[in-house]
Amino acid sequence: MDSRRPLLAITMGDPAGVGPETIVGAWSDPRVHEWCDAVVIGHPAFLRRAADLLGRRREVRPVGDVREARSTPDCIPCLPCGPESALDAPPATIDPRSGQAAYEAVTRAAELALAGQIDGIVTAPLHKAALWRAGHHYPGHTELLAELCGVQDFAMMLYLGPDETIRSPAGLGVAHITLHMALKDVFANLHIEAIVAKARLADGVMRAMRPLYQLDDERPRIGVCALNPHAGEEGLFGDEEATIIRPAVEQARAAGLNIVGPLPTDTLMVRARDGEFDAVVAMYHDQGHIALKLLGMHRAVNITLGLPIVRTSVAHGTAFDLAWQGRAESSSMIEAIRVAAGLAAARTVSDE
Amino acid sequence: MDSRRPLLAITMGDPAGVGPETIVGAWSDPRVHEWCDAVVIGHPAFLRRAADLLGRRREVRPVGDVREARSTPDCIPCLPCGPESALDAPPATIDPRSGQAAYEAVTRAAELALAGQIDGIVTAPLHKAALWRAGHHYPGHTELLAELCGVQDFAMMLYLGPDETIRSPAGLGVAHITLHMALKDVFANLHIEAIVAKARLADGVMRAMRPLYQLDDERPRIGVCALNPHAGEEGLFGDEEATIIRPAVEQARAAGLNIVGPLPTDTLMVRARDGEFDAVVAMYHDQGHIALKLLGMHRAVNITLGLPIVRTSVAHGTAFDLAWQGRAESSSMIEAIRVAAGLAAARTVSDE
Repeated sequence: MDSRRPLLAITMGDPAGVGPETIVGAWSDPRVHEWCDAVVIGHPAFLRRAADLLGRRREVRPVGDVREARSTPDCIPCLPCGPESALDAPPATIDPRSGQAAYEAVTRAAELALAGQIDGIVTAPLHKAALWRAGHHYPGHTELLAELCGVQDFAMMLYLGPDETIRSPAGLGVAHITLHMALKDVFANLHIEAIVAKARLADGVMRAMRPLYQLDDERPRIGVCALNPHAGEEGLFGDEEATIIRPAVEQARAAGLNIVGPLPTDTLMVRARDGEFDAVVAMYHDQGHIALKLLGMHRAVNITLGLPIVRTSVAHGTAFDLAWQGRAESSSMIEAIRVAAGLAAARTVSDE
Repeated sequence: MDSRRPLLAITMGDPAGVGPETIVGAWSDPRVHEWCDAVVIGHPAFLRRAADLLGRRREVRPVGDVREARSTPDCIPCLPCGPESALDAPPATIDPRSGQAAYEAVTRAAELALAGQIDGIVTAPLHKAALWRAGHHYPGHTELLAELCGVQDFAMMLYLGPDETIRSPAGLGVAHITLHMALKDVFANLHIEAIVAKARLADGVMRAMRPLYQLDDERPRIGVCALNPHAGEEGLFGDEEATIIRPAVEQARAAGLNIVGPLPTDTLMVRARDGEFDAVVAMYHDQGHIALKLLGMHRAVNITLGLPIVRTSVAHGTAFDLAWQGRAESSSMIEAIRVAAGLAAARTVSDE
């Protein structure tokens, strides 16, 4: 990070949603331009519309080669991407043209990152139904990026940096074993191997996070959620703790991780908030999301673990209920940029 | 409440746990003696031990008839109950003698409440394994009390009164459709009828709560949790929203409730915290407990809905890790007494 600021691509997401506004809003934070150079991938016209809406004077400068992008508070470099037809799609509405624009931006960003032309990706939200209507049937960004990167072992982490609420010095990350699936399907997707693999990914990213906070290298403290209430109450309420989660925790511990569990999730989340853990491994979507959204919905960052590239995202959706009204909140975007820049810098250092 | 303070029985719970300490601690709060007369049900020797441990000079006065109990900050009336052998059971340990003591105290309290000799019950925690070792195979207090009262339609609610975090004027209650069971068993226990019945119970208790805060009678605003992530994302991740939860919400609304849902649980909990709802209906234990424990673990109150008697409880367990060390926190006990006294007073008024 000393030699050169990381170069991040920020994908516009679904242009009918809050993406363009959150990007233009984030540009006003001078810290963004200390952390990184950033280039937006999407149609420049949406950025201009958002800047007009927000009353911000910004030059949106189309670039042909992302490597030449230099961002400043007054200038938003933008790699043009996505169909012209998306400009005619109505705002705050599910539309295949907007879904196609979101799809093209993220695939382009992944190509550039895999080719080493950028150091990381930050994604604004897409709308799943619009993506599907455009013919791209992915449960979400995370699964699409995993496929683009050819990766099987990946995990979605929600992350909150340290503050007066989150007391661990490197913040708190919650990695999910299963994600976008019916609760009923979770059981068939809980395996010892998956838990061990995702715990390792959580360990890795939380170690990489430590230099962001000037912390020495230490093994992150990981707490693993039980699946059942009261962690199964000694087998009275389910056996996945005994048959799957505990053996996985033991394997991970034998492999060197600083890991405990399964622990009853309701109290584990309180202990994690209060600083007892750096990361939590959650068994299903809502288990992690209920906690992290209560702890800091507007500043939470979504990190994809296990990719060969750095990728963070805002933790909110397209928010059609407030999109294109000038009311979108940029804090999650700013945090997503901060974390991506830090992880990209850590990766550069460890590559040297 | 004007004519006479409600008379509450406080059951000691498992005497090897934090129950006796939380009771003695609560006695020091002068508000407790404004809200109610209280009589403890359990062995007086444990209260004396706890008072000694905490360095509090209290007279523990055995009473034969609870109706004559008058509590003051200096005097703890106690209806002797439970086996003498429990005095020999080691503290902070699972022991059938302690489990038997907990069982006898709660059954005695239920008898007295059903006979109209007391106006409500507040329970200190029991330890399930100790209860089971004593031969009483109940998942918890709630199910035991429902059986003692001969009730089929009941629900467990976690409740937090209003404060700077919980913005609804009568606080926030989360009622659970299913409770002490494996997550895998939740699906077979979700029925339209159960959701409607428990939503009605939540509506009733939150209406009864309004006079505690000098609020006019208004229909409580109820939000119902989805079961699946993103509320099933239009059927992509599960169909229980469409087949069970939405029809139940529609039935309940047709019956006059002010109710919406199913809503994605992670954001519903944030909206409820911020004052948009008075009650939430959660589909399973952890869905409600993760949220409420993060929002106020130490002051949360457990309320059993649907009983013919008033019953509240602390929301924590026996806490053997800190029991009998003089470190137990009494705030949940104090809140449980406050809420029970308020609900008992509301019931007395509506009976008149």
